[in-house]
Amino acid sequence: MANQRVVIVGGVAGGATCAARLRRLDEDAEIVLLDRGPYVSFANCGLPYYVGNIIRDEAKLLLATPALFKERFNIEVRTRTEAVAIDPAARSITVHDHVTGRESKEHYDALVLSPGAAPIRPRWPGIHLPGIFTLRSIPDSREIREWVDSRHPQKAVVVGGGFIGLEMAENLAHRGIQVTIVELANQLMPPLDPEMAEYARRHVISRGVQLLLGDGVAGFEQSSSGALRVRTQADAVLDADLVILAIGVRPETKLARDAGLEIGDRGGIRVDGSMRTSDPHIWAIGDAVEVKSRLTGQWELIPLAGPANRQGRTAADAICGRDTRFDGVLGTAVCGFFGLTVSLTGATEKALRNAGFADYQAVYLHPNQHVSYYPGAHPIHLKLLFRKPDGLLLGAQAVGEADVARRIDVLAAAIQMKATVFDLEDAELCYAPQYGAAKDPVNLAGMVAANVLRGDMELAPWREVESPRALLLDVREPQEYRADAIPGSRNIPLGQLRSRMHELPRSGEIWVSCGIGQRAYYAARMLMQHGFRARVLSGGFQTYEALYPTP
Amino acid sequence: MANQRVVIVGGVAGGATCAARLRRLDEDAEIVLLDRGPYVSFANCGLPYYVGNIIRDEAKLLLATPALFKERFNIEVRTRTEAVAIDPAARSITVHDHVTGRESKEHYDALVLSPGAAPIRPRWPGIHLPGIFTLRSIPDSREIREWVDSRHPQKAVVVGGGFIGLEMAENLAHRGIQVTIVELANQLMPPLDPEMAEYARRHVISRGVQLLLGDGVAGFEQSSSGALRVRTQADAVLDADLVILAIGVRPETKLARDAGLEIGDRGGIRVDGSMRTSDPHIWAIGDAVEVKSRLTGQWELIPLAGPANRQGRTAADAICGRDTRFDGVLGTAVCGFFGLTVSLTGATEKALRNAGFADYQAVYLHPNQHVSYYPGAHPIHLKLLFRKPDGLLLGAQAVGEADVARRIDVLAAAIQMKATVFDLEDAELCYAPQYGAAKDPVNLAGMVAANVLRGDMELAPWREVESPRALLLDVREPQEYRADAIPGSRNIPLGQLRSRMHELPRSGEIWVSCGIGQRAYYAARMLMQHGFRARVLSGGFQTYEALYPTP
Repeated sequence: MANQRVVIVGGVAGGATCAARLRRLDEDAEIVLLDRGPYVSFANCGLPYYVGNIIRDEAKLLLATPALFKERFNIEVRTRTEAVAIDPAARSITVHDHVTGRESKEHYDALVLSPGAAPIRPRWPGIHLPGIFTLRSIPDSREIREWVDSRHPQKAVVVGGGFIGLEMAENLAHRGIQVTIVELANQLMPPLDPEMAEYARRHVISRGVQLLLGDGVAGFEQSSSGALRVRTQADAVLDADLVILAIGVRPETKLARDAGLEIGDRGGIRVDGSMRTSDPHIWAIGDAVEVKSRLTGQWELIPLAGPANRQGRTAADAICGRDTRFDGVLGTAVCGFFGLTVSLTGATEKALRNAGFADYQAVYLHPNQHVSYYPGAHPIHLKLLFRKPDGLLLGAQAVGEADVARRIDVLAAAIQMKATVFDLEDAELCYAPQYGAAKDPVNLAGMVAANVLRGDMELAPWREVESPRALLLDVREPQEYRADAIPGSRNIPLGQLRSRMHELPRSGEIWVSCGIGQRAYYAARMLMQHGFRARVLSGGFQTYEALYPTP
Repeated sequence: MANQRVVIVGGVAGGATCAARLRRLDEDAEIVLLDRGPYVSFANCGLPYYVGNIIRDEAKLLLATPALFKERFNIEVRTRTEAVAIDPAARSITVHDHVTGRESKEHYDALVLSPGAAPIRPRWPGIHLPGIFTLRSIPDSREIREWVDSRHPQKAVVVGGGFIGLEMAENLAHRGIQVTIVELANQLMPPLDPEMAEYARRHVISRGVQLLLGDGVAGFEQSSSGALRVRTQADAVLDADLVILAIGVRPETKLARDAGLEIGDRGGIRVDGSMRTSDPHIWAIGDAVEVKSRLTGQWELIPLAGPANRQGRTAADAICGRDTRFDGVLGTAVCGFFGLTVSLTGATEKALRNAGFADYQAVYLHPNQHVSYYPGAHPIHLKLLFRKPDGLLLGAQAVGEADVARRIDVLAAAIQMKATVFDLEDAELCYAPQYGAAKDPVNLAGMVAANVLRGDMELAPWREVESPRALLLDVREPQEYRADAIPGSRNIPLGQLRSRMHELPRSGEIWVSCGIGQRAYYAARMLMQHGFRARVLSGGFQTYEALYPTP
C-alpha cells in the first residue's frame, strides 16, 4: 500500500496541530501544509498584545517555523501558497504560489481545510482610507504597530466591543492612546447576557475609555490634515488618528463552497463528528466550520483556539483510521482588559431562550475570590444557569478582577461531566486564605441553586421588580439602604426582622433583597417558617445595579 | 411537639456553620453554641498571616460575634464555656464556665461535637521554655506577635515542614527573621510525593530559609542570655530566639472517648455518612472526626476547613430530618509560601501504595501556566495519577508560581465527577494568552496519560534510570545535554533522529528523555513506528532533577 498524501490548507492553530498529530500517527505519510500568508503556526491570539507592546519581540509570535516542521516532523510547509480550487473527483487542489505567480496541481488522499475566518470589513464609505485596520495576521499587527510608532496617534476608534475590540482597546490605551469603542449592540461583549456585560461597561469607563453603545458606524472621512473622522448612524462624529475594525469574523468558505461542500445555515463548513465534510476525502477544522453547542444542540460559529486544536487532532485521528469524536463545544472563553477578567462557559440565558429552552433558572452571586479578611479580596460577579428540576448545569458567566478564569474552568469541567448544582455544593476545592474560602464561590453557586431546587428558597422575578406584585423588603442596614436602594422597597434590617415581623403583610408576597443575596436568604428562611410568602431577589442590590444600570 | 434543643460544642468552622444552618432549617429550635475559648467563628486559617502582619487588624479574624449570632440567628453563644462530660443516657452534658468557675448541666435533644484538633506538643526536654509556641487560636497568634514585636527575634526555628510550618516560615521571614525548618521526614510537606515536595525544598532554600530534613528535635535549652538552643536528634544545635511547633495536630477526642463513643483506628471520632457518632443523639464534625478517602476508601484524619463546613451542614440537615450525606474527602489542599503554590487533590502515589493499589500509573509534566510568548510565564510541575486501564483519575499534585490552584481545582472537580484522563483531553477551558494555552496544562495532562493508555507511548520506569536495562537516549539539543544530563545517557537531538536512527540498537529497549517530555514523545512515536522498542521517561530532565536531586 502506498503512503498516503495529506494536504492541509491553512497552517495556524488547527492546521498545524493536525499536521503534527498526523506525523505522530503515521511516520510514512506525506504531509504538506500550505498557507497563503508568510507564516505558519503563529500566535494569532497574541497579536493585540504585540500591538500594545506587551509582547515586544515579533519573533515570539512564531511558534514554529517551516524549518522546524521539516526537521522535527518531516512535514513540508509551503508559505505564500494559496489553494484556489479543489477538484474533489480528481482529489486534487489547484495551488497558487504568490512568490512565483505560478499555479500547480497537488494530489491528495486526504485534504484538511483549515482556512480560518476573516475579519468582517463592511463596505462603509471611506472604509479603505489609510489608518483603518483589521487584525488577523502578523503583517496586520506589524502595520498597526508601525502606524502607532510613526504617527503617534492620540485618538483611536475601535469599532466593535467584543473580545478582540476590548483587547485592542486595552492595548491601544497601553500605548497612551485615548480610545472610543463604538458598538452596535446595547452592551459590550454581545455573547454575554447584558447584565453581566454591564460590569465590563462600568470598568472600561472607569479606566477612561469612551463608549458609544447602541450605535454603529455610518462611514469614514478624512480631513485635509489627514486625520480620520468616524460618522456614526446616530450622526455622532468622532475624530480618530487610528481605527480598528473588530466587528467579528466570517468563515473563509469560498474554497469549500466552490467545491460543492455542504455549508451550514450559519455560514460555516458543515462537518460530522470526525470533522469530515460532505466529501469523504475532505476534512475541515477551526474557525471555518460550524460546531454544535453541547448545551443547546444548535449549530454555531465559535472561533476559539482550544476547540480548533481538538478538531485538528480529531481530523488527524480520523485520517489515520482512529475513531475519535469531536463532540461539540461548551463555548468556554475568557477575555481580560484593564485588569478585569470576563469569562463564560456553556449557554447564556440569551442562547437558552434563542434555542427555545424554558425550564432553566438563573442565580446571581457576588462572592470574593478569597476570604475577605485576607488583603486583596475582589468580588466575582457570577451568574449560574441550571435546568429545572434536576439541576443540570447549563452555563456560567463571571466577571471580576481576580481568579475568575479559575472558577469558570471548574464550572466548564463540571458542565462537561454533566454535573448538577448539587455536585457543586459538594465540590472540594483549594482553600487557604490567599486562594479562596472554605466555601468557594463555586460551592456557594451550587448552594444557592440547590436551595432553589429544594424549595428552601423561592426566587422573585427580577424582571418585574420595577412594577412588583409584592412588597419589596430590603434587609440591609439602614445606612446601606439610605445610600441607594431599589425604588419602592422598604427597609427592615435582618437583625430586627424577628421582632418586627408583625409589620409585614400576611397576604401577598414579600420579595426580599439585601446587598448580595445572603442576608435576604436568611430573612426568607425566617419568614417562610413563620408562614410568610417570601421570595428572594437573587444577588441583591449588586444584581439590581447591573440589571438597571444608571447610565 | 416541643421545640428541639441542640447543643454544639466548639464554635469554629464546622460548629458555627452547623449552628447557622440549623437555624435556617428550624426557626423554632433552641440552639446553644459553646466554646471554651474567648471567640467563636474566627479565621483560624488566617492566624499565620496575622503573625506575619499581612493581616494587620486582629478584628478581621473575627468572622462573627456572639452578638451577631444572637441578633441574626437567635443562637445563644457561650464562650469560655467548656463541655467537660457527656451523659449520653440522660442526654446531658456537664459544662464548666471558665469565667465563674461554675459547673452546670445542659440537656440536649441533639449534641454536635466540633472540638477540633490540638497542635501536638511532645514531651521534649525544655518544651515549656518561654519562646516556644504552637498556633491554634487568636490568643496564640497574639502571643507570638507580641513576642516578635517586643523581642525582635533574629532567628527562629520552625519544627515541622508541613503546610502550617511553611506558612509560618514565610510569615516569620516576612517579619525579617532568619528561619530554619526542622523536619523529621526526608522531605517537606509530607502529604506530597517526595519528588513533588522537592520543588518546594528548592524554592524555600532559594529564598534563604535553612532546612534540616530527616532530623527531629531532641530537646530545647536556654542559654544564660535567655536565648533558646534547639538540639536535634542528629546532634545539631540551632540558636533560636523563637520556636514554632508545627508538627501536626491530634483530634480532641477526650470528651467523646469518656462518653464511650466509637473512636476509629486513626484516633478520630468515628461517624456515619450523616456525621452521626455511635450514639444516635450525638453528631461529630470537623478535625476531630475520621473521614473516608473517596479515592482509597481508607479512614483518614484530614483537618481541612472545606470538608468541616460541609460536615456542619450535613449534621444540621440530619438533625432536622434531612437525608444529606457526607461522602468522604478528596483531600484537596493548597499552600502558598514565598510566592510558590503547592496544591494537591485526590490520592498521592504514597497513599495509593499504602492502600495496596497497584493498577495505577503516574505521568509528569511541566507546562507553563500560560503561553510562553506572553510575559510572565511560569512552569507548573504536575503529577497526575490515574487508574489502568480505564484512565479513572486518582489524584494530582502541582507546584508552581502561578495559577496552580486553578488547575488542581479543575482536576478536583473532575475527580469528584469520576472523570477519566480522556475527559481531560476534551476539557474546554479558558484560553487567552494571559490566562492559559489552547492546550491547557489540564488538557496536556490528559493527553499524556491517554497516550499511555492507548499504547501510543510506553513509559520507562524512572526508578530504574540509574541502573537501566536499556539505552538512555536524550533528544535535547547538544547545548542542553552538555549543561547537565542523566548519567549514562546518549545524545541525539530530535531533529537529527530520523537520519541517525541506524546508530540505535534494534535489540533491547530505548528510554527516551528530553527537557520536559514533549520531544521525547515525538521521538518515541518516530522510533516505535520504525520498529524500535522506545519508552519515554515522563517529564524529562525536569522530573529527573526532582527524583534525583542534588542536595
